[in-house]
Amino acid sequence: MKKIAVIPGDGIGQEIMQAAVAVLRRTTELYGIDIQLQQYEAGGTAYDRTHTPLPEQTVRAALAADGVLFGAVGGDRWDHLPPALRPEQAVLGLRKALGVYANLRPITVRPYLASYSPLKEEIVRGTDILIVRELAGGIYFGAREEAAEEAGKMRAWDTETYSVSEIERIARTACIAAKQRRRHVTSVDKANVLATSRLWRRTVQRSAATAEVTLDHMYVDNCAMQLVRCPTRFDVLLTSNMFGDILSDEASVLGGSIGMMPSASLGEKTGLYEPIHGSAPDIAGKNIANPCGTILAAAMLLRHSLGKPEAAAAIEHAVDAALQEGWRTADMYRDGMKRASTADMGAAVLRQL
Amino acid sequence: MKKIAVIPGDGIGQEIMQAAVAVLRRTTELYGIDIQLQQYEAGGTAYDRTHTPLPEQTVRAALAADGVLFGAVGGDRWDHLPPALRPEQAVLGLRKALGVYANLRPITVRPYLASYSPLKEEIVRGTDILIVRELAGGIYFGAREEAAEEAGKMRAWDTETYSVSEIERIARTACIAAKQRRRHVTSVDKANVLATSRLWRRTVQRSAATAEVTLDHMYVDNCAMQLVRCPTRFDVLLTSNMFGDILSDEASVLGGSIGMMPSASLGEKTGLYEPIHGSAPDIAGKNIANPCGTILAAAMLLRHSLGKPEAAAAIEHAVDAALQEGWRTADMYRDGMKRASTADMGAAVLRQL
Ligand SMILES: CC(C)[C@H](C(=O)O)[C@@H](O)C(=O)O
Ligand SMILES: CC(C)[C@H](C(=O)O)[C@@H](O)C(=O)O
Repeated sequence: MKKIAVIPGDGIGQEIMQAAVAVLRRTTELYGIDIQLQQYEAGGTAYDRTHTPLPEQTVRAALAADGVLFGAVGGDRWDHLPPALRPEQAVLGLRKALGVYANLRPITVRPYLASYSPLKEEIVRGTDILIVRELAGGIYFGAREEAAEEAGKMRAWDTETYSVSEIERIARTACIAAKQRRRHVTSVDKANVLATSRLWRRTVQRSAATAEVTLDHMYVDNCAMQLVRCPTRFDVLLTSNMFGDILSDEASVLGGSIGMMPSASLGEKTGLYEPIHGSAPDIAGKNIANPCGTILAAAMLLRHSLGKPEAAAAIEHAVDAALQEGWRTADMYRDGMKRASTADMGAAVLRQL
Repeated sequence: MKKIAVIPGDGIGQEIMQAAVAVLRRTTELYGIDIQLQQYEAGGTAYDRTHTPLPEQTVRAALAADGVLFGAVGGDRWDHLPPALRPEQAVLGLRKALGVYANLRPITVRPYLASYSPLKEEIVRGTDILIVRELAGGIYFGAREEAAEEAGKMRAWDTETYSVSEIERIARTACIAAKQRRRHVTSVDKANVLATSRLWRRTVQRSAATAEVTLDHMYVDNCAMQLVRCPTRFDVLLTSNMFGDILSDEASVLGGSIGMMPSASLGEKTGLYEPIHGSAPDIAGKNIANPCGTILAAAMLLRHSLGKPEAAAAIEHAVDAALQEGWRTADMYRDGMKRASTADMGAAVLRQL
């Protein structure tokens, strides 16, 4: 019996999670996988009820689970809170607690969705990138100091920091992933300016030397450009935490909608799975959000945390089939297509399983 | 008599600067502007001759000049050098010496070039963004420490830091610029994670309150996405040094080629003008680089440092006219167009003056 902690979070988190949970249940029934799903709170809604964005109980349950399926957190309503109480602390705190350091963000442009991209079809067609983003270090978790103008502290700072071993383990993840793909790794840095980037470049270079992959290095500014100019040139994109945050959101539009994109965060133990989009408070509760990112995150959970690649592939094919049938949520709706609510889209995927 | 320091730098810097200098000379003759151009060394080629990427003489001349026109620096050949001797130190050192803190990067999609964009024409058409990037602070100039694995120093770090006054002065630049445009400023940060970003957001909010502009705040990851999804929504984009580096390179492709894009770096005194592209060692010496970015940087010099808006506009119109005549360097060449070398493109602009 595998335990899955389900954390819908804020905003559209509730609705997309409902659709994803239904798909996950059905798939595990079909494949005879014994799972127990239990729901937990996190984010701004958790803060409203419990005065913390990440209740102890949620952390304990996540640590005890075999996999965690996460929706999204955040919203303007909680923007005035002090940093430690903001909804984002739920996701940062969970990543920290679970020790997940490798964030995998596959960016695939499905052929029948290529025309939905803001880029020209001939440029995005065939794009298939795996972003491997370091998730436990860098400027996200370095020492920092808030400014407090009233107290005369007129300067704030944050520290970007990486150690050799932190870089080595994420480089290893990228190389292993590349071997199951087209065996090419592009490592992103700003080595012409940053000390951490120079260490990053040297360390990745050394780590990749023994892996059977080709490696190149690219400055982050150039990479931000090449992702739009020629996305098909990339196979595995290896990045620090901050650069990966920016580049993966940028890359997410290549396939037409960020709503389609899942992610897996892996460490030594329990994995954390989430769509890469946010909580979209403006459309929350309207039953129009795209649940596919979360559904595909559930597939990644089956693959990486439960070791069930066939069940994972079944979900991925069902999503494909539902889209090919013409179902489109509002983020991708176009004349002539079948307009789907969040629930409709979930149901269309279920029917294809 | 106005003194202009001309610094071609490395790689294609030489060839593009030649074209730009010819245009600048002719324009100032036509408009009766008395200038004296003098050439100085910087970058890897300067290092090869003088063992420093930024000779004292160059710094002194830049400080004494009314404006500095800069080409590009860098190349793999110098990548093995210790950080303090690398070609990039020339541009970082010059920015520091001149005290320039506001980097203006106009991103305009010319109607007749919209089809050259990797984005769909209907998405980029009408894009007209001014990126105002803070240039004298942030993680570029914060304290850092290199790792030295042999010496057991297995960790490197860099510091992102901003003070209230640094943020105020760049916010002021952005608001002033916005007033001459569509009066909207989008300020970019990562306030859900970084202390510097929270100070950035509060300070910009306060500064803009009295300026007659509308202001919104956007997370950097979302901004990287929106620049591709819907670039026409932006007017002035206000960013930190690092975020501006990434976003401006990303945005530079909207208009079809980074080779077209100029920039101005302004402070209290002498301004520094450069194309936003790099030194492109792979095509250096081939007479195929696009000189328009540097030519348009010379126009910005006339406008911002010499107070000659008509002469600046004359250059901008001449570039437009040459492109509309069909002249295209290799980065933008297409069947049916007139193939231009670097020199041809310069000559075509000259003829239009
Ligand atoms: C919510 C935020 C803290 C988070 C991040 O920056 O990592 C998000 O943008 C992401 O990419 O998962
Ligand atoms: C050469 C490099 C140091 C520089 C920067 O990062 O500022 C360049 O990329 C730029 O944007 O002008």
